[in-house]
Amino acid sequence: MTVLERRRVRPMAHTASETGTPDLAAVRLGVDTVLRDFLDRKEQEAPGPEFAALINGLRRLISGGKRLRSHLCVTGWHAAGGHSDASAVIRVAAALELFQTFALVHDDVMDASDIRRGQLSAHRALAAAYVTGGGQRGRAEAHGASAAVLLGDLALVWSDELLHTAGLEPEALARVLHVVDRMRGELVYGQYLDLLSTGRLVGDVTAALEVVRYKTAKYTVERPLHIGAAIVDATPDVVEACTAFAVPLGEAFQLRDDLLGVFGDAAETGKPVGDDLREGKATVLMALAVKRASGSDLRALHRLVGHPHLTEADLQRVRAVLEATGARSTVEEMIDIRREEALAALAQAPLPAAAARALGEIAQIATVRRA
Amino acid sequence: MTVLERRRVRPMAHTASETGTPDLAAVRLGVDTVLRDFLDRKEQEAPGPEFAALINGLRRLISGGKRLRSHLCVTGWHAAGGHSDASAVIRVAAALELFQTFALVHDDVMDASDIRRGQLSAHRALAAAYVTGGGQRGRAEAHGASAAVLLGDLALVWSDELLHTAGLEPEALARVLHVVDRMRGELVYGQYLDLLSTGRLVGDVTAALEVVRYKTAKYTVERPLHIGAAIVDATPDVVEACTAFAVPLGEAFQLRDDLLGVFGDAAETGKPVGDDLREGKATVLMALAVKRASGSDLRALHRLVGHPHLTEADLQRVRAVLEATGARSTVEEMIDIRREEALAALAQAPLPAAAARALGEIAQIATVRRA
Repeated sequence: MTVLERRRVRPMAHTASETGTPDLAAVRLGVDTVLRDFLDRKEQEAPGPEFAALINGLRRLISGGKRLRSHLCVTGWHAAGGHSDASAVIRVAAALELFQTFALVHDDVMDASDIRRGQLSAHRALAAAYVTGGGQRGRAEAHGASAAVLLGDLALVWSDELLHTAGLEPEALARVLHVVDRMRGELVYGQYLDLLSTGRLVGDVTAALEVVRYKTAKYTVERPLHIGAAIVDATPDVVEACTAFAVPLGEAFQLRDDLLGVFGDAAETGKPVGDDLREGKATVLMALAVKRASGSDLRALHRLVGHPHLTEADLQRVRAVLEATGARSTVEEMIDIRREEALAALAQAPLPAAAARALGEIAQIATVRRA
Repeated sequence: MTVLERRRVRPMAHTASETGTPDLAAVRLGVDTVLRDFLDRKEQEAPGPEFAALINGLRRLISGGKRLRSHLCVTGWHAAGGHSDASAVIRVAAALELFQTFALVHDDVMDASDIRRGQLSAHRALAAAYVTGGGQRGRAEAHGASAAVLLGDLALVWSDELLHTAGLEPEALARVLHVVDRMRGELVYGQYLDLLSTGRLVGDVTAALEVVRYKTAKYTVERPLHIGAAIVDATPDVVEACTAFAVPLGEAFQLRDDLLGVFGDAAETGKPVGDDLREGKATVLMALAVKRASGSDLRALHRLVGHPHLTEADLQRVRAVLEATGARSTVEEMIDIRREEALAALAQAPLPAAAARALGEIAQIATVRRA
């Protein structure tokens, strides 16, 4: 970390030492500063000017994140006894954001999604830039996908570099890397399950929940807490308490995401409503509907879900089935049950009061949201 | 590392301590054992049976490698003073092979290559398996590409896990990670330059050599030597000697690859001859030909290179231009010059005699080969 970076992160560290658990605004400021400085330095050190297009792609994509993983990482650090100088944990949190950018970029290539965080997805933006730069229009789509695969790879290897240069003691780094290794394997597993189940409308709620567990509950909530906790060598009871809170909350988070993907407002979510339906995602919501629907309702699901060019009327038809079968309200109930489960685990967790309070707030934000 | 793994790697370590620099056969045995045990353990520990398809994909792909990077890594370790127990360096070398598998899988997705190491490329094999498993034929190609992106991601994160669990002391691991971070950024840069230049027939030899420098010379030769050397904290003069040898040799290696891609025998290279031409790769060979050709020869290059469905007659026409312009013989001369440069650097390098001898043999193998 450069002197400049340390100075810029100071406000964050200051907040942490004074008030206990840093709030989301402080975490966001610290993480965004680290990411900006890191990418600026990467652009300065690039072997040639060509890298600017990829670096700008990363800047653009990374700016729109909710910083949920960062907030969890810093709170996990605090829950396990971390205090005073938060600069290293903020850099670790920034590494998680860069890793998430990798995951989103590859996910959008795999799902052929056009929009992400309210902007063109990476592969679409890179395809457009290729044509603007004089590339052949006929090659643009393939070029965009290839460049986005590389952009994702770059985000992944740079997230590692941020971790390696976070300023952790060697023993702390080894503990963190151990959790990071698990997290990344779990994410790929969840993504692969997701890929295998997409386009197969079989009404298997258990299988859909298994995807949620790996793709989101562990990756988005449990492991960020564990990574923060590993920085200060958390005791096993703290690690277990994090899991007991995180897994139900993470499931609730994804179930909310699934509802927003069908019933949400694109202006707030930053993603086109209905993309999950167009792609034929085997969400819990859809599994419930397929399991319960019959007659013309079931035929409508089979005809429409997974069709890439759904009209607004088609979407309305699917939404009507999701309502009529009670799938939507069941998912709302599942979210409530899991949030309560997470909060009950939290009430019994051996964590500092400020950290527990922060986690309670995160539970609310993650499950009662419109974006 | 488990007790079993230690025992299995013993023959390798034994060879190293007795004869100085391990030979390629010993390195191959050690690396292949580590990779087999690692992937077997990953399959046993997988959260579900679905991962078997990806793990089998990795097993299949990784079995066909030349183990050049492994050999360089172990020789770099020895060159910098490494001796006796080679088990950690063998695990680091195995991590490089898994990283290379990541690079090949994503490269084949980007180039839409059908064949790799004499077998179906990952995305083609995964597409075929999808249909066999009951997936819709119309989705097979997209599924194969998506699954291969994930397979590459998995190879990358597991190569990291192999590194992190290689049994290196924390300080040695930190030194290795520093070089690994540089290597991975350089590879992505080289791949991106390659992507940008593909399909643009501009006759720019300097630009083509820049791609070679990052995509191959640094990634395939220089950094594996440096990574091995970093394990034992090489002195700066050893690191510099490795660079002086590696960069010209790595360029010669890629130039040989480019010649084999057009004039080689598919049965020996494991890749279809002419794929570089079909993809419109801006190789040094092609840049020289475009720069020198005129009239009907130049028109033939513009008409044929980059065309995905070249016939054998088309390939013959392009080969004739590469011969007539002297591009082929110039590339042969460039290989000779670079090999001599590498050997001259080696003659002056402050390295143990056995390590220098091994590098001299590698220089020969890398530049005078048919596969």
